[in-house]
Amino acid sequence: MPCDHLAINPDRLRGLLEGINSFGFNRQTGGYNRVGYSDADMAVREWFMDQMRAAGLVIHRDGVANLFGRFGPAEGPCVMVGSHLDTVPEGGAFDGALGVAVALECVCAIQDAGLLPKCAIEIVATAEEEGRFGGMLGSQSIAGVVDSKWLSQASDADGVMLVDAMAVQGLNANDALAAKRSSGDIRAFLELHVEQGPVLESRSMPIGIAYSVAGVRNLGVRFEGEANHSGTTPMNLRADAFAGLAAIGTAIPGIIARYGHENTRVTIGKADLRPNFIHTIPGEAEFVINIRDTEAEGIDSIDAALRNAIASVARANNLKASIVEQSRIAPVQLDRDLATLFHEEAHRLGLEALAMPSGAGHDAQTMQASCPSALIFVPSRGGISHSPMEWTDWADIERGANLMLAALVRLSGSTG
Amino acid sequence: MPCDHLAINPDRLRGLLEGINSFGFNRQTGGYNRVGYSDADMAVREWFMDQMRAAGLVIHRDGVANLFGRFGPAEGPCVMVGSHLDTVPEGGAFDGALGVAVALECVCAIQDAGLLPKCAIEIVATAEEEGRFGGMLGSQSIAGVVDSKWLSQASDADGVMLVDAMAVQGLNANDALAAKRSSGDIRAFLELHVEQGPVLESRSMPIGIAYSVAGVRNLGVRFEGEANHSGTTPMNLRADAFAGLAAIGTAIPGIIARYGHENTRVTIGKADLRPNFIHTIPGEAEFVINIRDTEAEGIDSIDAALRNAIASVARANNLKASIVEQSRIAPVQLDRDLATLFHEEAHRLGLEALAMPSGAGHDAQTMQASCPSALIFVPSRGGISHSPMEWTDWADIERGANLMLAALVRLSGSTG
Repeated sequence: MPCDHLAINPDRLRGLLEGINSFGFNRQTGGYNRVGYSDADMAVREWFMDQMRAAGLVIHRDGVANLFGRFGPAEGPCVMVGSHLDTVPEGGAFDGALGVAVALECVCAIQDAGLLPKCAIEIVATAEEEGRFGGMLGSQSIAGVVDSKWLSQASDADGVMLVDAMAVQGLNANDALAAKRSSGDIRAFLELHVEQGPVLESRSMPIGIAYSVAGVRNLGVRFEGEANHSGTTPMNLRADAFAGLAAIGTAIPGIIARYGHENTRVTIGKADLRPNFIHTIPGEAEFVINIRDTEAEGIDSIDAALRNAIASVARANNLKASIVEQSRIAPVQLDRDLATLFHEEAHRLGLEALAMPSGAGHDAQTMQASCPSALIFVPSRGGISHSPMEWTDWADIERGANLMLAALVRLSGSTG
Repeated sequence: MPCDHLAINPDRLRGLLEGINSFGFNRQTGGYNRVGYSDADMAVREWFMDQMRAAGLVIHRDGVANLFGRFGPAEGPCVMVGSHLDTVPEGGAFDGALGVAVALECVCAIQDAGLLPKCAIEIVATAEEEGRFGGMLGSQSIAGVVDSKWLSQASDADGVMLVDAMAVQGLNANDALAAKRSSGDIRAFLELHVEQGPVLESRSMPIGIAYSVAGVRNLGVRFEGEANHSGTTPMNLRADAFAGLAAIGTAIPGIIARYGHENTRVTIGKADLRPNFIHTIPGEAEFVINIRDTEAEGIDSIDAALRNAIASVARANNLKASIVEQSRIAPVQLDRDLATLFHEEAHRLGLEALAMPSGAGHDAQTMQASCPSALIFVPSRGGISHSPMEWTDWADIERGANLMLAALVRLSGSTG
């Protein structure tokens, strides 16, 4: 049975996070830069391996630079806990790093209490979660869902090939295909992450327990009209591509109200007009509609409603419309039993916890393909992430870390 | 009385236009490049001076490189006819150049017929009409409405100062202030121009006679919301700057229906989102609303309605809004008597003519501040202008040129 007085050491946790964040810090911007397979990313991994070694763990680095630190029985399945060490460019201090630091702190707290797990605990610090190359290579490799064709073709926004970026760091991209952990090897995967959204803060809840991770579909839309002089072209003789874009923008709330639900998100984040001159009616509008939903049918029906709206807006505004599906990620339902266990432990610790979907993608959604996975959130101030402004209060971090510790003790059968 | 058999020579007119368009032609794009005070612009002026000299006219170049060619009495007022020789970058073959070529061809036709004007005719080829430096320097100098402060500060999109661009061509910008033609010197100013819009073509009318030139007001609008993750931010917790832009875009038709009329045009031609990423709710939308109307009150009431809409859209979408008036040009009513004269002459020639506003700006609107001015249009195929695709059928050009000839003969009292 778990020891009720067991708790993480917040100072040690803070020191661990600060240690991680001494890598890739930009003094000018306050941002963290440990982009996947960059020198800073590789350096922080060396440092974190040393920390796990110092904690007496059995360490291992796989072919894509995922790091593992094992505590407990050398043989048999493990409970895996962790997150990623890489960041977006100019990212925040908590995204990924916090989940890795919490994982190691939890193991240290178990050790401090003199407990030993019946089932091994493995800390994981995954590689390339932020999708510099468009995937989540670290967790995809562990789960065995890496596509070999993608592997050979993937490149970043600057055109650097994944294969080359890994080679520079002495890694062979093809080793990703050999990094799969065998079936039954991982009994559960547990991840703590910052919410990166405003829901917990807006409801004054300290903990979120994700029941699913939303799927994503991006529709690239192009309206083609006729670029003409804004003074000489009467309103009724126009083919104004911006008017089409605006009509789709204002149709979104109605489409969600009719075909969506609480977890539906539809966003136009990127839009470009051409020629984009003050005195010229836009002849072209190109934009991307980002659809997210926790239900696959939800995405499909929003997609269909948007396609209908695009067709009718095109007709009404004398435009040609084209639509290209740019990406598609299915929603993932996380493990119910694990979520229930987290709710139970939260209740036992006196923490209010909100059952919620995850709007952003995380390693846990990839791992769910291979083993039961759980994802818990701590609040993000102002919902801000991927920014130097990212912040989570230390009181919330401590609550979340203690919840993870409780779940880990229970799942690993750690006893004194 | 005008001679009924008097007519322009279409081949000579075509030769003149081709002569002008041998300057600044870009073989790659098919566009014409005689940007104000460029070498090509100065070279075409030299060539055109030679053509006017060869026609026996008394030529003069003023301090801003406006060209004049006088036919008839050396003393006394004149009827002035012409347009501009400069182009936008990659402009079309007809915009401005056609009006200059028609002016010279009309004088040649009068000479061919052995007529002499009682009142002198002056051909004018104005400088810098296309607003490389933000004004219409040539006709503003003639009309005496150049602002000396503007003159010293004006620069083009690349940051080149007007003063410097003129100095390179041996011109002194301050001479603009001495180029005013004295009061009573110009009895009337007549301009033929391509419509640059689709109205004449859509109504199968060969001639447009402008009764006014629309005014312009540009409102620079900035919506500031909060850039957040498109997956983690629920729809009801967003401050989506694009949603604000879209709402203004779709409000435009209703605002015109309520506060505008047939000649009202409201256009959003330029809009930029920030950060403009697919997965980020836009934290900022900057756009310019271009309002055009033939009535000053029309512009004012549309402006007021837009400001109300912006304020209420900002409230509804949790945005901060700021509005900056970027430019303001008042509508100009052209001379009624001259317009009537053109309608009479069109009727006499059997040409259907449409009384219409000019949506674009022209030298005639500037000249109206100094003397009675008239502006006639010939159709633009597809309404296209400021493009290598600009085209007007030669049959339409001939009709327009003969109408200008008839008006010129009548106003100058040319007789045999």
